[in-house]
Amino acid sequence: MPTPTRRDLANAIRFLAIDAVQAANSGHPGMPMGMADIAEVLWNDYLSHNPANPGWFNRDRFILSNGHGSMLQYALLHLSGYNLSIDDLKNFRQLESKTPGHPENFMTPGVETTTGPLGQGFANAVGMALAEKLLAQRFNRPGHEVVDHRTWVFMGDGCLMEGISHEAASLAGTWGLNKLVAFWDDNHISIDGNVAGWFTDDTPARFEAYGWNVVRGVDGHDSDAIKAAIEQAIACNDKPTLVCCRTTIGYGSPNKAGKESSHGAPLGLEEITACRTGLCWDHEPFHIPQEVYDGWRVGDAGAAREDEWKRAFDAYAAAFPEEAAELVRRAQGQLPEGFSAAADAYIAKLQADGPTVASRKASQMAIEAFAPLLPELVGGSADLAHSNLTLWSGSKSVTLEDRDANYIYYGVREFAMTAIGNGLSLHGGFVPYDATFLVFSDYARNAVRMSALMGAHAIHVYTHDSIGLGEDGPTHQPIEHMASLRYIPHNDVWRPCDAVESAVSWKAAIERRDGPSCLVFSRQNLDHQQRSDAQVADIARGGYVLKDSKGEPETILIATGSEVGLAMQAAAALGDNVRVVSMPSTDVFDRQPADYRDSVLPRACRKRVAIEAGVSDFWRKYVGLDGVVVGIDTFGASAPAGKLFPHFGFTVERVVEAASALG
Amino acid sequence: MPTPTRRDLANAIRFLAIDAVQAANSGHPGMPMGMADIAEVLWNDYLSHNPANPGWFNRDRFILSNGHGSMLQYALLHLSGYNLSIDDLKNFRQLESKTPGHPENFMTPGVETTTGPLGQGFANAVGMALAEKLLAQRFNRPGHEVVDHRTWVFMGDGCLMEGISHEAASLAGTWGLNKLVAFWDDNHISIDGNVAGWFTDDTPARFEAYGWNVVRGVDGHDSDAIKAAIEQAIACNDKPTLVCCRTTIGYGSPNKAGKESSHGAPLGLEEITACRTGLCWDHEPFHIPQEVYDGWRVGDAGAAREDEWKRAFDAYAAAFPEEAAELVRRAQGQLPEGFSAAADAYIAKLQADGPTVASRKASQMAIEAFAPLLPELVGGSADLAHSNLTLWSGSKSVTLEDRDANYIYYGVREFAMTAIGNGLSLHGGFVPYDATFLVFSDYARNAVRMSALMGAHAIHVYTHDSIGLGEDGPTHQPIEHMASLRYIPHNDVWRPCDAVESAVSWKAAIERRDGPSCLVFSRQNLDHQQRSDAQVADIARGGYVLKDSKGEPETILIATGSEVGLAMQAAAALGDNVRVVSMPSTDVFDRQPADYRDSVLPRACRKRVAIEAGVSDFWRKYVGLDGVVVGIDTFGASAPAGKLFPHFGFTVERVVEAASALG
Repeated sequence: MPTPTRRDLANAIRFLAIDAVQAANSGHPGMPMGMADIAEVLWNDYLSHNPANPGWFNRDRFILSNGHGSMLQYALLHLSGYNLSIDDLKNFRQLESKTPGHPENFMTPGVETTTGPLGQGFANAVGMALAEKLLAQRFNRPGHEVVDHRTWVFMGDGCLMEGISHEAASLAGTWGLNKLVAFWDDNHISIDGNVAGWFTDDTPARFEAYGWNVVRGVDGHDSDAIKAAIEQAIACNDKPTLVCCRTTIGYGSPNKAGKESSHGAPLGLEEITACRTGLCWDHEPFHIPQEVYDGWRVGDAGAAREDEWKRAFDAYAAAFPEEAAELVRRAQGQLPEGFSAAADAYIAKLQADGPTVASRKASQMAIEAFAPLLPELVGGSADLAHSNLTLWSGSKSVTLEDRDANYIYYGVREFAMTAIGNGLSLHGGFVPYDATFLVFSDYARNAVRMSALMGAHAIHVYTHDSIGLGEDGPTHQPIEHMASLRYIPHNDVWRPCDAVESAVSWKAAIERRDGPSCLVFSRQNLDHQQRSDAQVADIARGGYVLKDSKGEPETILIATGSEVGLAMQAAAALGDNVRVVSMPSTDVFDRQPADYRDSVLPRACRKRVAIEAGVSDFWRKYVGLDGVVVGIDTFGASAPAGKLFPHFGFTVERVVEAASALG
Repeated sequence: MPTPTRRDLANAIRFLAIDAVQAANSGHPGMPMGMADIAEVLWNDYLSHNPANPGWFNRDRFILSNGHGSMLQYALLHLSGYNLSIDDLKNFRQLESKTPGHPENFMTPGVETTTGPLGQGFANAVGMALAEKLLAQRFNRPGHEVVDHRTWVFMGDGCLMEGISHEAASLAGTWGLNKLVAFWDDNHISIDGNVAGWFTDDTPARFEAYGWNVVRGVDGHDSDAIKAAIEQAIACNDKPTLVCCRTTIGYGSPNKAGKESSHGAPLGLEEITACRTGLCWDHEPFHIPQEVYDGWRVGDAGAAREDEWKRAFDAYAAAFPEEAAELVRRAQGQLPEGFSAAADAYIAKLQADGPTVASRKASQMAIEAFAPLLPELVGGSADLAHSNLTLWSGSKSVTLEDRDANYIYYGVREFAMTAIGNGLSLHGGFVPYDATFLVFSDYARNAVRMSALMGAHAIHVYTHDSIGLGEDGPTHQPIEHMASLRYIPHNDVWRPCDAVESAVSWKAAIERRDGPSCLVFSRQNLDHQQRSDAQVADIARGGYVLKDSKGEPETILIATGSEVGLAMQAAAALGDNVRVVSMPSTDVFDRQPADYRDSVLPRACRKRVAIEAGVSDFWRKYVGLDGVVVGIDTFGASAPAGKLFPHFGFTVERVVEAASALG
């Protein structure tokens, strides 16, 4: 083979995608074929990365927001020398392979985030670009640009139709994230066909309205045009850039190019043969000529890039040793050494002081206590800062050119907020927290799920956790939300009953490095509960005996959050044979060893009452068919909270009655 | 009082809002004060409605998308003569009052939709405007414009920040909904303060990019300017219009106008006194001078408008009696007389034929069978028509100027799709169905909740219901979704096990006029199950005995959807003492009388196994602490479906083992 042309290099992507989809008999060849030329130019001429070390902290981030085109990314990773073999590609979409149907950050080296749910990869990328900007602000010093990389994102029409693209693009524009470059795969096709019937936006004008730099009308199959567009993006130093690439989906397929038939199904052997002829690619499936590999791996440039950066970082470390050590710590996701002990001391003091506050206030107190120790904590709220109580005395808006910038005014954008938080976390260097009312976790729901799937260290603060929010009414009163969030796998949900449990939940969320936590807080004041040191320690186990019976319990009351106080009152009315279990996190409790769980909820005791101002059926897992649940299975209502709790049956009398009725 | 000026009329709104919020000690005075002048012009000079009959079908629809300003709407309804008394206003935000914290369509005459969750009211309005357009296309005849009204919507910065505003505005532009007019309350303030830090969009340019007619720079406190803007909106006959109104939040408050402090809290008595002075309003709280009422109710115009329409309708009915009767039927939400019997006949035939198809295919077959009987059925999918199988032989795109237009290509916009469906339903004349993959119900989740809260007759079709979707992997595989949707109050969720149950679920959803249904279908083929006529009839009860034991059951297997076939195989392996319960809808089953439920799940039988490819804990409500659940509590994986079911333990062996282990 003669020296491969750029088109040859791109065709390697095309045929790896074509052949892997065909082998799997499942997948999306059209997008990789359409974006191969753009990807080839970006990866070979611009992307600053080191395939030998996907964890190099200052690498450019590359995000495939149109994740159904995963074979594009796998082909790029393979061709450029990541630890992703041709056998891995042959195993596309097979059980436990490194090449799942959509890119998964926890399966494949070089995949920065998990995509497929459209629009979210783009929002993750906005988070990563923000992370870079904030870290650069904090750590770079004149002559020492140790944090300095770009974030590149590919997105399709689907991403642009999704609402989250609006929220994320708007914020990226406001923040002036000039090192963010998005490539729009303008191929006129989505799954249902030509988008003319359902996607008529003037997208360039729309992004200009967000304050983006827009490069229009780029021929996505012309390498020179692509290069020129990227140069324009790089030259813009105050805005993110959208590169509008006119492409042909399924480029190279004589009969399916430009049609939705190339989008989401194998091309078929006959058409693949026609592609080989048309694109002059006469190699067997999964055979890449050495010359093509050579073209993709010129001069081991990746290692050289990282080496150069390492030298720069050494110089920085010599000049600014503290900053360098701090950056390394944060990049590695290590908490400061003294954090755990300091948090425990704060918790112990709270237990002694016994404040009666709303748990949202207790949350703010915990932030105030912990944030000075944790410069990586970057917070925000979807326009509810003074309701969610997410500001603390050291909060500084990220719109400031300030080293200590750590607070994000997200506006009313719950979904992008959460996905941007995921991006901040995945980038590294940050532990993000976001916030809204619990009921509006709905707006962000799939991003919360993605936090959990990706194992992102993200903290979702949800206040106004029940009918206790009162007058705003049923649109604002969560009913099914606690249960629904708990059901997301790998998601830890906490609903603390007082200031002490609130602080413990914050500590747990901060220390849970491999997954997200949802911290759910009340609008209204919650009574402080008395505890021994051992009880304080057991809060972190998710559920524990808050008040024990004399001897073996005859009845167990299980409660969370604002209903723990009610349970304590009911227990006092019921007598000595009643145990009260506070269960701030069922997820954490369920992970405890069986003997601990049995010690809290002895198998023999079936007279169990669960109390939570939310759907009752969730609690059947603890009370079974023989117990009873005091919950709410209808929507709430608009009235003062003090009226609503009795209206919906949250009274000592009803709990006593329910417990007494248990035979 | 001399003849009131327009400003006086608007001030009546302001003080009703100010005083009601003060009385409730809770609420949002700033928006009503800011938008009062716009509202006064719109309602007095343009809104075509009849306060004496909020159900008049051809009325203009008025939507308060920024629903926190509910007192604006209540004041308008009261002042213009709806059945909403001054005492109702005094009861603002009190339990069971007609004036809840946010507008609720089921509480207050004249409230078209429930708002508060930002952006959704706007999307509902797009649905209503589409409903009007489609009904006009179908029913109007030359000289007989019996369907002819506008949809007006108020929206704030918050609505515009939300992603759903992008999705909904984009579709409204594509559809050219020229009778939709949105007023942007451009007051520069959201809850966190001046929006300059988080909302820098060029909103007019953004809406022009969607193909809207945009009227810029309107002084929202200048009645003449507002009138001129509305005239421009009305004059535009091919695009929806955004009227950009520069307003001052809390207009009239000397110390809080233009500030976030007027947004969400009572002004306080001192400031209210200052407002009275500044606005020359020297009336007691809740006292409206007769002259002001007179100004709001000039000449009983509403009744005259409806009378005029009635005469026009009578002429139409004389000329087109069939069309008129059909329009009346649809407007009243009545199903065609023969529907139920025809559906039952179809179901009986299916039971006899016994097709083995994917339930998504069975869903399409049901649509094909029922849609010809139901011209009110208007369908759509979020760019997954050929995966969700939502098209039928009579589908015609709503972008066509066709009388039979009944299919909506929503593009990749799950949230707006669902909220637009709610709007179609609330408008009347339509039974909407929408569709996406089950996992992406997440994107639409709060709109599904709003369907249920509002009692909207909407049908949400969710296909690809489990790991059975296979290679697309965990981002696309629902785990927690069935349980989470079931937990939404008043939401009926169905997961049928074969073509017969699929058809029954469709019939139930169509006949459930007071609430939504989620119909959840498989990607893969499902075996047909044998049933007696009585069993077929019992499907509609949500759960029933599909295969009974000899004598009282020793063990009960409970399953849904694709796991019913597995349960039947396991039962065959386990022997004669095993009952199999198919439970396509737990919601419907739970509403059955206790004796029916007990007959299906006898209390005495505790050896119960539930089988569903989703979170296991949900099923504890049926199997208790003594039973066992074969479910999935982790994320799925990317692999062929045939590999995934055994990988996650869905095998006859495991079910048999689980049942046998129950002592």
